[in-house]
Amino acid sequence: MAAFPGEEYEQRLARTRARMAEAEVDVLLVTDPANMNYLTGYDAWSFYVPQAVIVPLQAGAPLWVGRGMDAQSAILTTTLPHDHILSYADDYVESTVKHPMQHVASVLADHGFGKARIGYEGNAYFFTARNLDVLRHSLPDARFDDIDLLVNWVRTVKSPREIEVMRQAARIVERVMQVAIDAVAVGTRQCDAAALISEAQIRGTEEFGGDAPANPPSILSAENAATPHAAWSDAPFRRDTATCLELSGCRRRYHCAMSRTVYLGKPPDEMRRVADATSEGMAAALAAVKPGALCQDVELAWRKTINRAGFSKTSRIGYSIGVNYPPNWADHTASLREDDTTVMEPNMTFHLMLGMWMEGWGFELSDTFRVTETGHEVFASFPRQLFVKA
Amino acid sequence: MAAFPGEEYEQRLARTRARMAEAEVDVLLVTDPANMNYLTGYDAWSFYVPQAVIVPLQAGAPLWVGRGMDAQSAILTTTLPHDHILSYADDYVESTVKHPMQHVASVLADHGFGKARIGYEGNAYFFTARNLDVLRHSLPDARFDDIDLLVNWVRTVKSPREIEVMRQAARIVERVMQVAIDAVAVGTRQCDAAALISEAQIRGTEEFGGDAPANPPSILSAENAATPHAAWSDAPFRRDTATCLELSGCRRRYHCAMSRTVYLGKPPDEMRRVADATSEGMAAALAAVKPGALCQDVELAWRKTINRAGFSKTSRIGYSIGVNYPPNWADHTASLREDDTTVMEPNMTFHLMLGMWMEGWGFELSDTFRVTETGHEVFASFPRQLFVKA
Repeated sequence: MAAFPGEEYEQRLARTRARMAEAEVDVLLVTDPANMNYLTGYDAWSFYVPQAVIVPLQAGAPLWVGRGMDAQSAILTTTLPHDHILSYADDYVESTVKHPMQHVASVLADHGFGKARIGYEGNAYFFTARNLDVLRHSLPDARFDDIDLLVNWVRTVKSPREIEVMRQAARIVERVMQVAIDAVAVGTRQCDAAALISEAQIRGTEEFGGDAPANPPSILSAENAATPHAAWSDAPFRRDTATCLELSGCRRRYHCAMSRTVYLGKPPDEMRRVADATSEGMAAALAAVKPGALCQDVELAWRKTINRAGFSKTSRIGYSIGVNYPPNWADHTASLREDDTTVMEPNMTFHLMLGMWMEGWGFELSDTFRVTETGHEVFASFPRQLFVKA
Repeated sequence: MAAFPGEEYEQRLARTRARMAEAEVDVLLVTDPANMNYLTGYDAWSFYVPQAVIVPLQAGAPLWVGRGMDAQSAILTTTLPHDHILSYADDYVESTVKHPMQHVASVLADHGFGKARIGYEGNAYFFTARNLDVLRHSLPDARFDDIDLLVNWVRTVKSPREIEVMRQAARIVERVMQVAIDAVAVGTRQCDAAALISEAQIRGTEEFGGDAPANPPSILSAENAATPHAAWSDAPFRRDTATCLELSGCRRRYHCAMSRTVYLGKPPDEMRRVADATSEGMAAALAAVKPGALCQDVELAWRKTINRAGFSKTSRIGYSIGVNYPPNWADHTASLREDDTTVMEPNMTFHLMLGMWMEGWGFELSDTFRVTETGHEVFASFPRQLFVKA
């Protein structure tokens, strides 16, 4: 069973094909796992071997090509006709003498694309340099065009069904954040808090079971709060330190992310000031969101506000978010930052991520929102404050 | 704090440099996150943006290059001198006008490698086709050699310290599998079992906290047991179905994997026969393991045994395993399969993965072992049987 009805995928394909026509390609070789899922429903942890969805510009169902043992997952999770599900033998996997992209090339050739204009995702995770080398070598008469992010830009404006699933993810992350704040306590090991958080993420709610998010629980405690992508450890949480929590609910691989910060003890004045400024900055940023606004406008509203309070932030304050697999839940398209002139449209969705990574400590506050017809809707409902525990 | 003392990394670098000399490269551009960790200790969830460890053939500490906000993670987790930790500005990230590999290229040039023989990991996850294009364009006088898996082959033979950490992961997976078998019950949602499994993986033991493994819990229930990489769902486990569990303990990013199968009800005779044959096949395979044996010898011992019982398996039965990040815990070097002539050496470690994916159902049995001086050592202790629950 695909996550959505067939007509949802048909609409996505139609929007993709419109962009393919603009890009002047005959066929699209989609290898980003999130894009494969988006266009066909395909959902399996098989992206550690080469696989692809082939989308011809002309009407008709795409083709799925992957490892033989994963073809059954394609049958179970996509809307594709079974004769569009093709696979390669297991001895292609990690072979020293042949490469799965040779098989993909032969499928392209068999379907009349040996001399076609083939669009590929040149900067997508898992589309390695060798993948392209093998394809070029196998199809010397084809023209290869790097159309990276073409499908990601289609994904950037969500459908009503996708918004509904992100709302379900919001119900999950509300629970997850409460579990997390409860778990962070002096003397508790960081890994034990991470364990409870992951449990809550995957259990979901009674109504909506969860997936493992594309990013693991981010639990940045004490000195790790100064760097956003540190791993948790066995060390216990300590008194008089801050812990930043960047977490997500994940439903049908759609994400609703949220960050909050917990302080164990009496927070220093400086942290209070950062917390207040960040909260004001978030309000200012959200107030700037509406159809027609540019992404850079939202960042500017934030920047003006925190600059007034005497703070600054050198990194972007958010990005488009939606369906994804590890290692990252972002759509990799629009960013909330200076010089990003993407025009906001209704049902674009962003993770507004205000990470203040200071010298030796940090503070995080973030929420996921959608652009509405008139402004914004924050998906999850959770107090925006510094959580202080004795 | 790096996971191991400095001398461990020095030994790894020395072994890597010996292979670099054989490969005739002046410098290695290491982008595989597991290889970056292996050579320097670097551990952060930052591999969703371009980053690299640069290893000169000549003695001296490697260089770390990554995103500015992650430099602090490099300071906290590696043994590198601080002036070997270099970073790029945040506006390189997902930019439409510049690429982080331009910055990496400038670092290479600044350190005298603008005309060097540069080895890169051409088939490594996250080393995209565009990464290589940008490097070639930025350093037109350099020679780029695809030395993919060079570091992975160094990783394939573990050090005593690594073996010790894999033993810790074994203690974790023993607990995890018991939690999993207890959790699979008629009427329980699959996601709720997954939640408890993940919780156990990350909690670890009192002595050794866990990491989130490179592969999520694999819970293949009923029809999903016919395909190895399916995701769990909200659906409850049903009576008279099998559930295959492929799980891992993960400690300091080192994995000990294990698979077992649970049947809810009275197993059909066919499943009993597969279970018995698989168990015999595993014993035969393990009996063939010793220094000097070839990987294909192990597979042959398995194949002869299950063929006698009237079964066959078209996919490989195992692979080298160790330190890794998502999406996969394999070393991507030696496989236990026909025609793999890798010679087994002491302290190579393998996941012997006997997945029998049949028509509409399946059975899995697997364990992780190391090659010893005289034979093998299975890391985890757990009954090798079909678990039958009423």
